[in-house]
This record gives sequence, C-alpha cells and structure tokens, in this order.
Amino acid sequence: MTTVSKYNRPTRFPDLPVRGPTGNELIQVERAKASFDVNSLSKFIYGEEYLAKQDKIVPILESEPVFDKSRRYFQGRDEKIRDAWKKDKRFLELAQKHNWDSKDQNIAHALYDQTSPYHLHYIMFVPTLEGQCNEEQRKLFLEPSKRDEIIGCYAQTELGHGSNIRGLETTATYIPETNEFEIHSPYLSSAKWWIGALGRTANYAIIMARLIIHGVEYGPHTFCAQIRSLEDHTPLPGLIIGDIGPKMGYNTVDNGFMMFDHFRIPHISMLAKYAQVKPGSGEYVKPVNSKLSYGGMVHVRASIVSETGRALARSSTVAVRYAAVRRQFYDVTTPRKWGDETIETSVIDYTMVQYRLLPVIANAYALMFTGKEMLRLYHLNIEAMKQGNFGILADLHATSSGLKSLTSFMAVEGIEECRRSCGGHGYSMFSGLGHFYNDYLPTMTVEGDNNMIYQQTSRYLLKTYRDVVAGTAQPSEHNLTLTYLAQYMQNPKAKCPAATATEFLNPEVILTAFGFRAAAGIAKVAEQIDNQGRSWNDALVDLHRISRAHCQYFIVRTFFVALQHATDEGLGMAERKVLQTVASLFALHLMEKDLSDFVLCNYLSPEQLDMIKQQVQELLKIIRPDAVALVDAFAIPDYMLNSALGRYDGNAYVALTKMAEQEPLNQTQVVDAYEACIKPMREYALKNRKDLSKL
Amino acid sequence: MTTVSKYNRPTRFPDLPVRGPTGNELIQVERAKASFDVNSLSKFIYGEEYLAKQDKIVPILESEPVFDKSRRYFQGRDEKIRDAWKKDKRFLELAQKHNWDSKDQNIAHALYDQTSPYHLHYIMFVPTLEGQCNEEQRKLFLEPSKRDEIIGCYAQTELGHGSNIRGLETTATYIPETNEFEIHSPYLSSAKWWIGALGRTANYAIIMARLIIHGVEYGPHTFCAQIRSLEDHTPLPGLIIGDIGPKMGYNTVDNGFMMFDHFRIPHISMLAKYAQVKPGSGEYVKPVNSKLSYGGMVHVRASIVSETGRALARSSTVAVRYAAVRRQFYDVTTPRKWGDETIETSVIDYTMVQYRLLPVIANAYALMFTGKEMLRLYHLNIEAMKQGNFGILADLHATSSGLKSLTSFMAVEGIEECRRSCGGHGYSMFSGLGHFYNDYLPTMTVEGDNNMIYQQTSRYLLKTYRDVVAGTAQPSEHNLTLTYLAQYMQNPKAKCPAATATEFLNPEVILTAFGFRAAAGIAKVAEQIDNQGRSWNDALVDLHRISRAHCQYFIVRTFFVALQHATDEGLGMAERKVLQTVASLFALHLMEKDLSDFVLCNYLSPEQLDMIKQQVQELLKIIRPDAVALVDAFAIPDYMLNSALGRYDGNAYVALTKMAEQEPLNQTQVVDAYEACIKPMREYALKNRKDLSKL
Repeated sequence: MTTVSKYNRPTRFPDLPVRGPTGNELIQVERAKASFDVNSLSKFIYGEEYLAKQDKIVPILESEPVFDKSRRYFQGRDEKIRDAWKKDKRFLELAQKHNWDSKDQNIAHALYDQTSPYHLHYIMFVPTLEGQCNEEQRKLFLEPSKRDEIIGCYAQTELGHGSNIRGLETTATYIPETNEFEIHSPYLSSAKWWIGALGRTANYAIIMARLIIHGVEYGPHTFCAQIRSLEDHTPLPGLIIGDIGPKMGYNTVDNGFMMFDHFRIPHISMLAKYAQVKPGSGEYVKPVNSKLSYGGMVHVRASIVSETGRALARSSTVAVRYAAVRRQFYDVTTPRKWGDETIETSVIDYTMVQYRLLPVIANAYALMFTGKEMLRLYHLNIEAMKQGNFGILADLHATSSGLKSLTSFMAVEGIEECRRSCGGHGYSMFSGLGHFYNDYLPTMTVEGDNNMIYQQTSRYLLKTYRDVVAGTAQPSEHNLTLTYLAQYMQNPKAKCPAATATEFLNPEVILTAFGFRAAAGIAKVAEQIDNQGRSWNDALVDLHRISRAHCQYFIVRTFFVALQHATDEGLGMAERKVLQTVASLFALHLMEKDLSDFVLCNYLSPEQLDMIKQQVQELLKIIRPDAVALVDAFAIPDYMLNSALGRYDGNAYVALTKMAEQEPLNQTQVVDAYEACIKPMREYALKNRKDLSKL
Repeated sequence: MTTVSKYNRPTRFPDLPVRGPTGNELIQVERAKASFDVNSLSKFIYGEEYLAKQDKIVPILESEPVFDKSRRYFQGRDEKIRDAWKKDKRFLELAQKHNWDSKDQNIAHALYDQTSPYHLHYIMFVPTLEGQCNEEQRKLFLEPSKRDEIIGCYAQTELGHGSNIRGLETTATYIPETNEFEIHSPYLSSAKWWIGALGRTANYAIIMARLIIHGVEYGPHTFCAQIRSLEDHTPLPGLIIGDIGPKMGYNTVDNGFMMFDHFRIPHISMLAKYAQVKPGSGEYVKPVNSKLSYGGMVHVRASIVSETGRALARSSTVAVRYAAVRRQFYDVTTPRKWGDETIETSVIDYTMVQYRLLPVIANAYALMFTGKEMLRLYHLNIEAMKQGNFGILADLHATSSGLKSLTSFMAVEGIEECRRSCGGHGYSMFSGLGHFYNDYLPTMTVEGDNNMIYQQTSRYLLKTYRDVVAGTAQPSEHNLTLTYLAQYMQNPKAKCPAATATEFLNPEVILTAFGFRAAAGIAKVAEQIDNQGRSWNDALVDLHRISRAHCQYFIVRTFFVALQHATDEGLGMAERKVLQTVASLFALHLMEKDLSDFVLCNYLSPEQLDMIKQQVQELLKIIRPDAVALVDAFAIPDYMLNSALGRYDGNAYVALTKMAEQEPLNQTQVVDAYEACIKPMREYALKNRKDLSKL
C-alpha cells in the first residue's frame, strides 16, 4: 500500500520564499517612483463609469466556476470548446441575474477573454440582420435572434475565396414556380469555410451567394435561412455542415464549413432592405446605392483599432511588470543596491529592454487615442451626412482601411515583442501572452486581409492627389490628406528645419515630417502610375508604403491633438506631462523604424537621423521611472491577464510554481507511460547488453 | 433507430472537384517554367547520400502507426506527450531493425519533426558526459547512457536564473566526512526549471550547482546523479520533480522542475575532466583553462544556423506552393489566361506577395550556405588548433554568437511571414506552419538568449577595432573583421561608387557596402565608449546594430564566395545562374530593410537607396518563374511538411477537406453540448418570451 501512495501523491512545492528582494518588494519600489497619479490617468482613458463597472463585474466572474480560468492553459481543443458552450449558457443567466446592460456584457466578455459561439451571434449575425432586413424580415429573423431563440452565423468566406467576394462560388437561383431560392455549391471549393459558430452551434445562417434569376447573374447577395433542425439540431436535408478543425488559437469557436446540395429556401430569405427580387416574375430591383453603409465599416474598424490599443496595453502590462521584478546579471557601471547589498539588475534597467518595451506602451496609448478619435469622427460623420455633408466620410473611410491593417500589424508585433522580452518564461503558457497572441492573430485577416485592404487607402490617396493637382479638390477641415498634400506642394524640396535633437520634441516639427514623407511618397507613385505607365500590380509595394505613411501621420497627429485638449477634459498636469513624453517617444520611434522613407524623399539629413536616434534614447530614460505606473494605468485586472508573470503583486515566480502544481502530469509521481514505454526501453537495453556480453 | 444513425453519422464531403484549373494543374505549369534542373540543385545542396537516405526512410516512417502524423493537430498536450514516449520506444526498435547509423537517425528524427524526451537525452545529456567525464565516470555514466540503460537530462536553468549562470542558486556543498556533495535548493527561485525530459522521464541528471568547500565558493560546477528509482521510477528521497506545464509548442517534451532538499550524492558525481575536488581533504583543483571548449559551442551554433536555413526552406515550400495554386481577384493589367478562359490570378503573381515570399527563399539558401561554411571553419579550426594556431577561433567563435541570434530571428520572422501569406488558411493548424512556428520559437532562447548573446560578438568587434587602431592586430586571412575594418580605415569618408541600379548586382559593390557599414558602426560605438564615457549598458542598442551588421556581412560574403566555387563542386551553369540571382536578392533585400544604417554612415545617397529598391523589384521579377522550382529543390517530403497547403501535388483545398473530416467534433452530427447547453438556452429564451407575453 505504501507504493500506491508514493505513486499517487501529487507534486507540490515546498513552502520556501524566493531569493529576495521579492517581486512584490521590487514592484512597490517601481510604483513609488511614479511622477503622476495612476488612477487619474486611468479615469481619463476609460472614464469612471467603465472602471466602476469593471470593478463590479470582476468578483462576479471570479466566483463563477464556469468562468474560472485556472484550467485554461491545460485544455485541449475538445475541452476548450465544451467549456465555451457552458460559458455561453451561464453568461445568459448572469446577464439576467445582474441586469447587465450591453456595456456590462461587453466588459464581462472582455474580462473572460475567450470568444465563444454566442458572442459571434451577437457581433456578426444580429448586426447584419439589423442592417439588411425589411420590416417583415425583422420580425421573422431579427427579433427571435435578439431574444436568443435562434442562434446564427455569417456564412460568407468559402474554401477557395476569401477577400474576393465577387469570386464566391455558391449560387442562389430564383425558382419562380415555387417562389424559392435554390442555394447550391457547385464545387468542393464552393464550401463555406471559416464560418464562426457554424461548425456545431448555429441553427440559422446568413448566406452570401451569387444571385441568379432566369439565367442572369446579379453578383453576391445576402440570404438568411434555417440550417439545423430546431427539434434535434441535425443539419437540414441538403446541407453538409461541420467544424473546420483546430486553429492556432480561437479554438473556443467552432469555425465551420457548409455545403449546399440544391438547398431550397423561401423567397423571404433574401434580405431585402436594399436589393429585391419580385415574387413570381423574378424582376430584380437594384439596391439604392447608399454611402451610408460605409459608416458601419468605419465603426467596426474603429473598434478593431481600439482593441489593438487594448491588446498592447495588456501585453505591455505583463512584460513591463515582469521586467521590473526579473533580475539578471550585475550591471557593473550602475550597480543596483538593495539596502547594503548589491543585487542583480532588474532587466528593465537595461537599455535594450527599454528600447523594446517602452515603445509598446507608447503604441498602446497612441492607438487608444486613435480608436477614440475614429469613433468621434464616426459620430460626427453620421450627423454631417444627415445634413447632406459627405466631406468627412471619404477621408475617414479610406483612412480606416489602412489603419485597420497598420494597427493590427503593430499589435501582433508588439504582443510578440512583449512575450519575447519575458525570456524563457515567455514561452510558458503561464505567461498568458502566447495564448493571447494566438487568439489575436486572426485580426490581421478578418474585416479585410491586412495585406490587401491597405489598397483602399492608397487608391483614395492617389485620387486626392490628382484632385489637388487638377485644382478640383474641395477644401475641408477634416480632410487631413489635403492638408499635408497642400503643404508639400508649396515646396516639394523642403528640408526638415531641426538643428538639434531637442527640436525633434516639437510636435510641429514631427508632424510636418510625417506629412511631408506621406505626400512625397504619394506624389511619386502617382507620377509613376499616371505618367510612366507603371501598373497597379507593379506598384503594390510602394502603394503599401504610402498607405502606411498616411496612417502613421493620422495616428501621430491624433495623439498630439488629443493632448492639446486634454487638460480641458480633466487631465492633470503631471499626467499630461508624462503622456506628452510618451507621445514624443511614439512618434520618434516610429520615425526611427522607417527612417529610410524620410531620407528617400530628401527631407531628413543623415545628421538629423542621428539626432532622432539620440532623442529616442533620451526619451526612454525619461519614461523609465514611470514605466510600471504607465501600465498600471491601463487598469487591467489580474483575472483578465491570467498571467503568472504580469501579476499586479509582482510575485511572478511564486505564481509560476502554483500554476505548475496544477499540471495534469504532476498529479501522480509516475506516469502510466513509465510501464508502457520507459521501463521496457530500459529492459530492452539491459537485455541487449546481456546478449552482447554472451557473444 | 433512424434518429441514432442520423446523430452518429460522421460528416463527409461530397465527391466534387474544385473549381478548375485544379491546384495540380496550376503547379505543373509552374514546374514547367523552371530555368534549371531541380534535382541537380537538390544534390548540390544536400549531397546524394542524404537524399538517398531520406528516400529510404520516409516510407518506413509512413508505414509505422506510431509515426503517423494524421492525429497530430488534434491532440491536446496530454495525448501529445504520451505519443512522444511511444515514438521513443518504437524509434529504438526501428533503428536496430533497419541498422540506422547516426545520420539515418538524424534524418528520421527530422522527418518525424517533433522533439521527444529521448532525443534530448542524446543531444544534451550524452554530449555533456562525453565532454566532461574522467575515465571512471565514462564507465559509470557515459557508457550506460549510450546504451540507453539510463536516460538523462541537463539541469542548468533555474526558475529565477537563465542567462546568468553565475547567478544560479543551487548549491553543492562538499561533505568531507562522508566524501559526498550535498545538493540543495535554498529558495523557491532555486528550483531547476525548463529542464527537458526531466518532468516525467529522466532517471539521471546533469546538475549545475555552485560548488562550496569548507565554506568557500568556487562558482558553478557540473554534477551527474541518479534522480529517480530504477525500480519504480519515483523521485529519490530529497527531490521534488515535476513538469513545468504547457508551452506554446514543444509539448511533446516534459520540460521539468526539480528542487533539492539536502540531497546527497557521492564524490564521483562531480564531473572531473577539468576541475576536481580531492576526496577527503576537499582540496580544489582548478580546471586547466581550455579554449578547446569554445569549439563545441561553434559546432552547436553552426547546427542552429543550418537548421534556420532548413526552417525557412520548409516554410517557404508551403507558402510558395500555396501561393501558386491559390487564386484571388482578376488582375486587370495582365489577365491570367487558362485556355480561352480568363481566370483569377495566382496570388504569387502579385508583386506584394513576391516581395514577401521570395526573400524568404533567398534567406533559406543563404543560411544553408552559412551553416555549411561554419561547419567547414569549425573543422578547419580544429585542425589549426592542433597545430597551435588559434587565428580562426576568435573570429569564428565571436561571429557564431551573433549569427545564432540574427539567423534565428530571421527564421522566426520568415516562418511567420510565410504563414501570413497563406491568408486565412494559414491560421488553420492544417497549414502545418503554426505548429512548426510554435515548436521553432525556443530557438530564440536556447544556447544563449538572442537578446543577450549578440553582446559577445559586439565585444569582440570592439576589441578588434582597438587592436587595429593600436596597430597590434595580427593579420589573418580568416579574420573577416580585420579585412573590412582595414578597408574602412583607409578611407572613412568613402562613398558607394554605384551609378546605376544594375551596378548593385556586382558582389564587390554589395560586399564593400556591407563591410563599410559594419566598420563605420563599430568605429562610432568604440569612439563613444572609449573616448566619450558612454557606458556599455547605455550603448546596448548600438552594440546590437554592429553585431547584426557584422553577421550580415558574414552571410552575404559566404553566399557569394560559395557561388564562386560552386561550378568546381559540380553545380551546373543554369543552377549557378539562378542562385546568383537569389544571392543578389538576398543581399539587396537585406540592405533595403536596413537602409538607414547605410545612410547614417554617409555611404549611400538617397538616389542609391532608390536604385536598391528598384533592383529588388527587378530581381523579384527574374526569380518569379523559378519560385516553385526553387522550393522543390529543398526536397522536403510531404510527410515532413504535414501541410494541406504545401503539398507537392498542389491540391491544397482537397487536402483541407480530408483533414477536416478527421476533426473529432465531426464524428457525430450533433455534439453532446447540444443537450447540455444549446438546447437549454433556446428553451430558456422561449420560456422568457412566454413569461413576458403573460405580463
């Protein structure tokens, strides 16, 4: 019996302290260094309501077994998705019990931090119905879906077609005899693919298919139909539906596939707010071309940009806190003292670590302001359009494409940089960053693949340039492109006036440089395409550069402008001062990364490049003491981070051991593979030796 | 009974073709375009023996159930590691059955492509014993470990210490009374951590601990000891051993932790080839300082560099093949024709895709040549050192640090770029790239964290510069640093002579530019540190730049030099020609990415930057028709790729559906979560409506 207990005993760590000073002691020292008030800054960023709601919701989730995150990093795909369905069910109950409004629900969802099938129902299915149903369809589809009586998915992408919607293969043929549409997948490559919540959850679907009436094709249109039995959940006859299999992340969602075998749906299924097919005759009624639909895209993209800010906030919170408590090597030039003792230096004191991490903090702040500004412009635009003024829309819509692309790339890079800066432990799932990174990755692809979508911005920039050259551009205070193009065209041979590194702290100097570089790039590509016969495809790399340049200008400008007005909006002087430094770091670090662009247009001299590099190093030094406070101000609760390394209390190593104790392999001393594999291998080896010795 | 079968039926795709032309038809067109012979190039890269061995081993593995990869992407951590142990057992049997030599075994291991506990035994435990045992210890530890009678791990890293080995906390105190060492973990942070194969497999360990004799400390030393019972595999008394939990990848290995509670081991346990402790007296005998041990590090790093080449070869094989068969949008300027039909353009025909993917192919070739060259120099050096000539060693050893760092970063970036270029499907595990990326990531950390290790290179570069300035440098044909430093110092104000974009195809022009840029960077940092009082920590970012610049010079030079001699070594003219273009692309793309460095040192003018950008675009066009052939020449079997997108036959979409059919969720039509969650949610909603309607 002793043997059994020896085998079955779980592995536990002894009750020993870490070698001091502890993480908690170290992080307290960091907090004491702050030059500003963390709570004031948090309030400025999120508003008091948001923070109060978050404080209220965290303990509710923490006390719910279904919302417990302690098993998350140990789960395989199967377990993960089963938990997601449980969470969806409990979420509905909690929302009712606590009377959560949509803001509360969004916060709860963000805190739980794992997308689930029903969440996609709300962000994809319901809004599409909102936008495209006529009155009858609202009653038939929208209302039950808002009451959770049906659960839907948005089936657009196909196995063989993603970005090119016009290339979709699924057909919807109008059958006048029965007043139905017949949805059909002519090829294997026509299978709907990647559709979130379709695999095993949804009983309804929005289906994008090429409309065909009397043999004439009208391009992709939107349909809504039931796809699974409401009695037993089996797919309806004529449908093959399944899950597309494991992904790098996002495995709590059943992204699915669907094939249609002459699947008939009633006439009412074609969403008819815009285009319509007349019953019986099959006459096609064209959609009234409405620029209003652009507005919705801007809103979605503004959300993505805001989320990129949050993503960087979260990853830098983990990385900066851990860099403050992780000590490695004794720095000979400036030894770290702890009382009388010389201790190893916190890695955040190495300039290389600062150079890698502090710009991520700056990016986080920059993108939060950009997200806010996009929402502000979105609402401003809605109002303006009601007055018949479309002056904001074009610039905003065009910018939003490039911003979606640029900022989600920035987020992916930043999250990974944070993870790497945690050294070896960053590779452990317990860092929380690997899981987060894997779940974040699809942002690069959804709502327009980052590597395609920037072309929308480039196309607009070229058009604007041509308008300016032709003198047909309409002046508008909201059209940033016009502003910097006009400035450039006054003097395309202008040089940056900065004579010292310090002058690069002047927002005017920085902004003019970003504007000049964008304008010069646009002018050059326009010249090549319009006058030298360069094809669009041939110019794609340069077209990407101008989109990027324009969007960087937008972000930099937004950050500086926001700070100009910030004190009026209640930001204290100390908080404003630190943000100003952060904004300078943001802009100059961005310039440093793309320096060759600024040289190619002959705007900056090699000496000025050197000044910029110097100034970046100076700014890192100034920000360093505020580093932990700046991430604390992001106000991300430990429950959300779910990270051993990024805990508020700084006790990273203790947390790693606690999490390791939960590893399933550690629940017994000896794994069954010992009898099955390890022991036989040894026996085999011993037998071999014996056999050999007999020879 | 019908209901049951309706539920239980697995989901299968219909027998439909994809919309033509098929992937296979498209990829055949690509192969027909090749300007060179794929097999000849493969033979030049790998040698005939390697390819023959690979051809022999693939079918063996494919026919072994334990080596089947079809379940790999569906497995959770638990299943994965259990399979790894099974694989280890079967591997031993296969090696014996087929009489595999070490080359065969390495190939088989690479093809299986998933590290396992016994593999670490061979690459970490056995070589350490080889290097550090005295004769008695070889009999006691090394021989049984080579016969697989014991299985060992290498326990160095601790929870609180990675890179800084001198900071390790575990102590080994000599006890003269019993002639033993007492291994002890004084703190929680002293726990050995990350130790591969320790978690649940190893019964022996190499243990790094600080040696203490009579209260005096002698720094970290190496011990070998039994840690688990050979009878029942339980940890020996005084030890706490477990698995550190899930990681982003590498989950087939039981990275473990271990804590020592006054754990006694016999005197023989201290590996005594170098340092020794005399029994009884405890007198410490210093190690004879041997530069020879550097050689081993060079060998390990050369392997890592070669592997980075292989990693890029593999990921570009997947991405380029898929880019050839994936079609998206109609290119208006150059419509793609298929017979009479205009079809959508293969994405590889978009210049943006070429710009992203073709440099990865170039990087792959460059790093394969670099790996080979390092091994050549390694062997040359071994011979030279036997003659008492240490001229090669210093430069090679220093360069190897920076190269390990630079090239593994290049690999990680390249793999991820390839994955992203596959669009949405790149995120599916079936692409094979996500899994591979996650398993590759630790290369950035092992054998010296990439973000630390470059300092060894920088330190050497500064030292060499000082020697050159002082006139004390020993001329040596193998010292590349001396070569370019000397050239620079002849004229630090030199300018690049290229007057046209074509001149940048001249290897001399390119190499001189890389040399100048490295030298100018070194001179500048040396000046700042030596004469302006800049501290080492303050200069870390610039020190990284010079290491990077130096290593880029090494890789570029190696590639060009290899091609100079390639025809003598049997490379055909057509194959040499295409590699020459690839080498130019490699070098110029590298320059383009770091252009600001070349400007900062005043070597290149803005006009020349523009020429380089143009030339890169030209080279992409030239290489485009050979793209598929260039990745085919990497000769990576489908079994190894395990990728739906990268298959040799080009039938990516069919493969995706076949793999999706294996998804566990698809084995029944309705998941059990329907009864548990989805149905109750609907009922709950319906009940709510009813309740509301009663009000």
